[in-house]
Amino acid sequence: MKLRCPICGRTYDEPAQRCSCGEPVEFDLFKGEPYLGKTVWERFWDFWPVEPLLELSLGEGDTPLIKSKIGRELGIRLYLKNETVNPTWSFKDRGTFLAMSYALKAGYKTVGTVSTGNMAASVSAYASRFGLNAKILVSESASEEKLKAISAYGADVIRVLGDYGRLYFESLRLGEKLGIYFINSDNPFRIEGYKGIAFEMAEELSPDYVLIPSSSGGLFRGIAKGFIELRESRLIEELPTLVTVQAEGCSPICKAFEEGKPRIERFEKPDTIAKAITNPYPPSGNAVLKLLRDFNWLCVTVSDGEIVEAQRKLAEDGLFVQPASATGIAALGKLNLPESSKVVSILTGSGLKTLRNSQSGSAAECPLEKLENCVRGQN
Amino acid sequence: MKLRCPICGRTYDEPAQRCSCGEPVEFDLFKGEPYLGKTVWERFWDFWPVEPLLELSLGEGDTPLIKSKIGRELGIRLYLKNETVNPTWSFKDRGTFLAMSYALKAGYKTVGTVSTGNMAASVSAYASRFGLNAKILVSESASEEKLKAISAYGADVIRVLGDYGRLYFESLRLGEKLGIYFINSDNPFRIEGYKGIAFEMAEELSPDYVLIPSSSGGLFRGIAKGFIELRESRLIEELPTLVTVQAEGCSPICKAFEEGKPRIERFEKPDTIAKAITNPYPPSGNAVLKLLRDFNWLCVTVSDGEIVEAQRKLAEDGLFVQPASATGIAALGKLNLPESSKVVSILTGSGLKTLRNSQSGSAAECPLEKLENCVRGQN
Repeated sequence: MKLRCPICGRTYDEPAQRCSCGEPVEFDLFKGEPYLGKTVWERFWDFWPVEPLLELSLGEGDTPLIKSKIGRELGIRLYLKNETVNPTWSFKDRGTFLAMSYALKAGYKTVGTVSTGNMAASVSAYASRFGLNAKILVSESASEEKLKAISAYGADVIRVLGDYGRLYFESLRLGEKLGIYFINSDNPFRIEGYKGIAFEMAEELSPDYVLIPSSSGGLFRGIAKGFIELRESRLIEELPTLVTVQAEGCSPICKAFEEGKPRIERFEKPDTIAKAITNPYPPSGNAVLKLLRDFNWLCVTVSDGEIVEAQRKLAEDGLFVQPASATGIAALGKLNLPESSKVVSILTGSGLKTLRNSQSGSAAECPLEKLENCVRGQN
Repeated sequence: MKLRCPICGRTYDEPAQRCSCGEPVEFDLFKGEPYLGKTVWERFWDFWPVEPLLELSLGEGDTPLIKSKIGRELGIRLYLKNETVNPTWSFKDRGTFLAMSYALKAGYKTVGTVSTGNMAASVSAYASRFGLNAKILVSESASEEKLKAISAYGADVIRVLGDYGRLYFESLRLGEKLGIYFINSDNPFRIEGYKGIAFEMAEELSPDYVLIPSSSGGLFRGIAKGFIELRESRLIEELPTLVTVQAEGCSPICKAFEEGKPRIERFEKPDTIAKAITNPYPPSGNAVLKLLRDFNWLCVTVSDGEIVEAQRKLAEDGLFVQPASATGIAALGKLNLPESSKVVSILTGSGLKTLRNSQSGSAAECPLEKLENCVRGQN
C-alpha cells in the first residue's frame, strides 16, 4: 500500500488519510487489464487498493448511461450517467463500499462520517450491511427529512453544533484516537471507488467532456484518476476534458482557478439551492485545482435559476434529480462545446432526497362523474 | 398479437385491455432462447409482445440480487431482488417501459394511469421520456409528498373525487373513447414487462420460493408468466413456489383463497401502513386466485407490526424500503420453509417514497468542543 500527497509529493506506506502538509493523500496509480465479469468490481479487479468484499456488495455501480434528448438543440451527443439508481440512491455508495471493505479487513469495529446528506445515508447503510457500528456526524442545519433517511439504517446520528468545516478535521483526529475509521468525502479508498464511474463510461464510449458536480472534490478526483489509470494501462488513448461544475453561490474551486490563486480560499456565506455541493472550504479543493491546471481542464459555475431550469429539462428526459445533480446540465450552455462532441453529465443523487424543497405538486380536482370533461379540458 | 382471458378463455386478436367477462386479458405464452446482451430486454428478446424501444430506455431492470443476512437465523438461503434501484425507484418502470413502447408505436399521443404512488411517478417519467402527454388520475387521499414526486416530470395530475375502484374501469372506458392509452396496474404489456424479474432471477439461481407483495395482482401475474415461459422454453426445469403476500389490513386475495371462494370480494375498510398494496378490489385478483390454485402456490398475510419489524431487519442489510416492500420478509416467519431453501423476496419500492410516514430521525446534539465525549459516550 503506497499513498502519496498530490500537492507536496510526500509518500506514506500505511493507510493515512491526509498528508502532514494538510492535503489529502491518494493511492499511486494502478495499472491493469479488464476481465469478464458481471460487476465493475470484477471487470476492473486490478485497479482497487483493497479486495472488494463482493459477498457484502449491495449492487452499487454498473449504473445506466442514458442518451439524453437535451443534446439535440445544442448539436452535441449528450449522455447521462445515472448514479441515482445506486443502493442508497447516490454515487456515494461506490466509495463507501470500497472504504468499508478496507475498514472491515483492517479490523475496525466502528466507522463514521461527516455529512448531512447522501454520504451519511450511504455510510449508515453499508455499516449495517457490514455489521459495523456507525457514528454519523451531521451539521446543525440538517433537516428532519434528511435525518429520517439517515437514521433508517440504525446508525448513531450526532448533530454537532459548531463550525462544519472544522468538524471534518476534528473527526479524523478523533477517529485515530478512538479507533473509529472515518470515511469522509475524500477518504483515499472512497476516491478509488469513484473510479468505477470512469471505467464504466469508457466501456461504452470515448467521451470528449465529462461534467462533474463538485463540492469536496472527491468525486472529481476519483473520476480523473480512473481515466488517467485507463490511459496509463493503454485501455484508452486520450483523456476526456473534465469539467468541475459548482454553484455560483458556493464556488471556491472555480474562484481560485479563475483568479489564478495558488490555493483555494474559504467561500464566505455560501448560498445555493444545490445543498449537496455547498462545502465552502473543500478538503480536496487544492488537489482539484492542481488537476485542472495540469490537464488544462475546466471549471464552470451555474446560478440557482439555471439549476432549476436544468432540473426541469432532465425531468423531460424522465430523470428526477436533486438540484446539485442538475448542475452539469446547467453548465452546458456556458461551455462552447464543438458540434457533435460526446458529453457525459453525472447525475449524482435522486430527486426524492430533496422532495421537501421541491415545488408543490399541482393537481386539478375533479369529481368522478365529470372525469371526461376534466381529462378533455386539459387535453 | 393474440390475447386471451385467463378466466373464461375468450381470445382477442387486437390489443384489448380486459375481457368482455370483466377479467384482464393476457398475451399467450412466448417461447424462445436467451441471447448475449447487456440488458434483460436484449437477452430475452424472443419474449416481449412488442419491440422494446431501447433508445428510449432509462435503464430499467437488471437490478441486483443480494444475498441477505436475514436468512441465517431461519436456516434458509435468502436473496433480495432490489427493485428500488429502477429509474423511478420502483419495479413499475419495467412494465411502464414496455407498455410505453407499444403506445408510441401504436400512434397514441397521450397516455394515462390510475395510481397514487409508484406507478403514477413511473408513467409520468416515461411519458416525458417518450414525448407523450400524460393524464395521471390520483385518489382524493394522495399526499402532498406523493404529488410532488409525480408532478416533477410535468404530467397533468388530476385528483379524482369518488370511488377509487370505479376509477380503474372508468379510465379504461374513457381512454378508448378519447384515444388515450391507459397503462393501469394490470395492463397486458405491463404484465409482460414484469417477466424480466423472473428471467433475471433464473439467470442467477433456481429459487424454491419467491415472495411477492401483491395488491392489484399485476406483479404476481408477470413473475408467474415469466417462470412459466422459461419452463415451456425448457430453460428451467421446475417452477418455484410463488407466494402472494398481502397486508392483513387489506388481503382480498388471501381471504378468498383461504375461504375457498370462487372469486375475490371487495375488502371492506382496508387499513394498513403498506399503502402501496391497499387495493381493496384488485383488478387481477381472480386471475391471481386461479394461478394460486392451478399451481398449488401460497397466499400469506402479515400485520403492520410484522411489516415494521421486517423493514428494520432489511435496514440492517443496508436496504431502506417502503412498508409494502417489507411484506415478503415479514411473511418468512409464517411459512414453514424447508432448511436450505433458496428464497427470493421482491423489494418493490424505495423507502424514500414514504419518508413522511417514517419514524422521526433521532439525533443526539453535541457541541463541537465536546465531540470526543459525545462519540465515546455512545460507543
